[in-house]
Amino acid sequence: MDHRHVLRALGQIQLLIAGAMLLALPWSLWHRDGDALAIVLSALITAAIGAALWHFGRHTQQNLFRREALAIVGLGWLLSAHTAALPFVLSGMLGPVDAVFEAMSGLTTTGATVIPDLAVHLGPDLAPGHARHGVMFWRSLTHWLGGMGIIVLLVAFLPAAGGAAKALFQSEVTGVSKEGIKPRIRQTALRLWVLYVALSLLQAALLLACGMTLYDALCHTFGTMATGGFSTHNASVAAFASIPVEIIILLFMILAGTNFTLHYHLAHLRLRLVLRDPELRLYLTILLVSTALITLDLAARGPEPDASAPTLLRQSSFTVVSIMTTTGFATADFDQWPPLSKTLLLFLMFAGGCAGSTGGGMKVVRVLLLLRIASHQIRRIFNPRRVHVLRLGRHIIDADVQQLTLTFFFVGMAVFAVTSLLLAALGTDELTALTATAACLNNIGPGLAEVGPTQTYATMPTLAKLALTLCMAVGRLEYWPVFCLLAPSFWRQR
Amino acid sequence: MDHRHVLRALGQIQLLIAGAMLLALPWSLWHRDGDALAIVLSALITAAIGAALWHFGRHTQQNLFRREALAIVGLGWLLSAHTAALPFVLSGMLGPVDAVFEAMSGLTTTGATVIPDLAVHLGPDLAPGHARHGVMFWRSLTHWLGGMGIIVLLVAFLPAAGGAAKALFQSEVTGVSKEGIKPRIRQTALRLWVLYVALSLLQAALLLACGMTLYDALCHTFGTMATGGFSTHNASVAAFASIPVEIIILLFMILAGTNFTLHYHLAHLRLRLVLRDPELRLYLTILLVSTALITLDLAARGPEPDASAPTLLRQSSFTVVSIMTTTGFATADFDQWPPLSKTLLLFLMFAGGCAGSTGGGMKVVRVLLLLRIASHQIRRIFNPRRVHVLRLGRHIIDADVQQLTLTFFFVGMAVFAVTSLLLAALGTDELTALTATAACLNNIGPGLAEVGPTQTYATMPTLAKLALTLCMAVGRLEYWPVFCLLAPSFWRQR
Repeated sequence: MDHRHVLRALGQIQLLIAGAMLLALPWSLWHRDGDALAIVLSALITAAIGAALWHFGRHTQQNLFRREALAIVGLGWLLSAHTAALPFVLSGMLGPVDAVFEAMSGLTTTGATVIPDLAVHLGPDLAPGHARHGVMFWRSLTHWLGGMGIIVLLVAFLPAAGGAAKALFQSEVTGVSKEGIKPRIRQTALRLWVLYVALSLLQAALLLACGMTLYDALCHTFGTMATGGFSTHNASVAAFASIPVEIIILLFMILAGTNFTLHYHLAHLRLRLVLRDPELRLYLTILLVSTALITLDLAARGPEPDASAPTLLRQSSFTVVSIMTTTGFATADFDQWPPLSKTLLLFLMFAGGCAGSTGGGMKVVRVLLLLRIASHQIRRIFNPRRVHVLRLGRHIIDADVQQLTLTFFFVGMAVFAVTSLLLAALGTDELTALTATAACLNNIGPGLAEVGPTQTYATMPTLAKLALTLCMAVGRLEYWPVFCLLAPSFWRQR
Repeated sequence: MDHRHVLRALGQIQLLIAGAMLLALPWSLWHRDGDALAIVLSALITAAIGAALWHFGRHTQQNLFRREALAIVGLGWLLSAHTAALPFVLSGMLGPVDAVFEAMSGLTTTGATVIPDLAVHLGPDLAPGHARHGVMFWRSLTHWLGGMGIIVLLVAFLPAAGGAAKALFQSEVTGVSKEGIKPRIRQTALRLWVLYVALSLLQAALLLACGMTLYDALCHTFGTMATGGFSTHNASVAAFASIPVEIIILLFMILAGTNFTLHYHLAHLRLRLVLRDPELRLYLTILLVSTALITLDLAARGPEPDASAPTLLRQSSFTVVSIMTTTGFATADFDQWPPLSKTLLLFLMFAGGCAGSTGGGMKVVRVLLLLRIASHQIRRIFNPRRVHVLRLGRHIIDADVQQLTLTFFFVGMAVFAVTSLLLAALGTDELTALTATAACLNNIGPGLAEVGPTQTYATMPTLAKLALTLCMAVGRLEYWPVFCLLAPSFWRQR
């Protein structure tokens, strides 16, 4: 069998990335950064790689095999992280390992950074030729491209990747529904992209109206809509010290972490469908309850005992939404918060956004499903003779989907354990090892201790950076595509 | 339907406990402790409760229903923790919450203690009438009784509790095998008890031969064979500063954490069956690899950089075995160890001993099964058309068993998360909250930070102690019996 159309798909992705890179060029030229050459060169190299893959590849009318789809997704992300790293390397800003870490962090919408000081590249008092607006714009743009990639992934590849994903994403429960959106992949992806672009434009316009510069507004919109988290300031969103800015970003983080199909329903005024969605309900409930708990915890044991209730609510709501949607913007140093807040944030990292959103993590629908499976199992144990059927909304969740969801949970924990051990073996302390892994695997960005919101990943050992880079891809692609690539039998079988 | 034979079974358990309490009496009289009255009174009250339950209960020839078996197991442990707490309360040694914590810790073979200073009760220089040899003997004896209870649980109740447990414990893979042990419950339990008693006598004799007092030898045997961990010294096993003692306890911890059916096979010289057991292989591999890793970690980053290699190996092997078998004896303050060692020990807590042993935790066979299921799932995803069958040894693991094992893992993590959050909310720091929960849920005893091996649970808030008490029972009974008791529908249905 001929698999050359896999190469062609990979080539297409690289050509798209090369084109997107050129969008960074105007910023570089406008601010006379001196990085314009590096950007053009990166785009050319990426385009050449894309063209070569396209040339050796072949178009085909046949449907993709599942293994081919998995290979495109896995290899696509891994290769793109390397070409997207070129501007960082060629501009001399980062070494190769750091550059790939940063690019992967961007494309997987993680937002973990190895740049210790953003002011060195974007500060207001930099001498001409020393700023890096172009490359830094590219850094934020990778988030937005990653978000678009995830939308394709959702509608096109994950159903092909089988089992739970298929059932979850094709049912009304979680998203791409028969009632709302046509099943044709290209059409569905386009519709969701239109939504994504429209929401991005709206957010950017609102941020501009709050007095942000166009550059900051765009970069933070990319970070929000993709649930990424790269900022243009060391203090992240706190740098703007503006309540309207925080509220806008808060609201759009919630929207970005919601199933995009629900936005589609909302735009068509199908309110009943939206309000009845069990995942959305649980998502909003967790956000509200966590905000309430953390506000109370901060009031009782927080680092600023004299802070007013609205201030605490402002900090806790932003942080809860930022962590749970896996964005990672910061307005407070939550590493200084009391134990309950830190522990709760750590667990929220694993829950993540809704299925069908750009958010990472396990996805709320899986949490919901796991809880239902557990209570279902308890009933089955003390009453084994009855026939028990598990439903979510109006849908019956069959044994295969249950199995895949349960296995997903175990595999996530296993990857988490192995990576944490590796990080600890490389000399990071235990809380840093555990939370850095959680933050990268679930595509959040900041963790606690040495990778807390005021810190970066810059001081991590090189091997740890490589492990976390892979971890981001593994988490973003929901394990299976990367693991399939790693399995020898995947390559042997025809 | 008449459920009064459940009451009768509960009554029997209490009568047994009352009888066992009297075994503590000679120690009290011999050392002239002044606690003899408290012990006699406790035994009488327990016997009265037992007799009352027996009286209102009724014998029946009919087989137990699954729900009745679950009720006996769950209520049996919960009620026994209260009657076993009587000597602590009546002697004035502990308050009611502490006493139930200590008794539950004993009966679930956890070994977490709320007694801040053992020397106050057992020290050599105590004035007459101030020592508490009787009550402290009872404390250790609860371990050994708990271990006997677990053996009954294994052969009698868990198969009735359904699904995975049934398949696991009734198959050759993990235990009570058709080839080795007769399927009759009473007979099987008796045979395993004979093994348990024989191994206990052997260990006690060996410890006596090393120069231990009879009292210390018996108490540490109870702690070892039940994988409990209560010691008679504040420094735990380190107090004896004896290599032979450590080696004997190390070996018997390994034996206590091994499936008892394998001991039975070993006693009948069926070596082939023992060596081929996949769970035993993984168990020994994890012990060896973890010991090697921690020894290297201690050599590179340990708190005693000048310690010799044999010293480090002695400390790491004992600690790894003590934690993984969920015993909890200590010869080193592993809370001072470097990050890799601490993280690895934390994960070992969850693995636990082998199925069919007195060890707690998730059980090695479940770890093995989960790993197999995950790799099986990956093959299924990229090759969905093939029929895939999951085997363990020569046995096919059907979908029901897979589902129950996977759900078990999720439920464990969910209980862990909720309890940790509760502990953090009550004011314990995050590492203490996480490791105290892990140590109690998996029936180990010591955790890290404020509940590290040199610390106790004495300073925990009262609510935290209550939560951890329930946690110990939940973990020991492998979730389902306690959860069934908590489900309202369990009580409604007939």
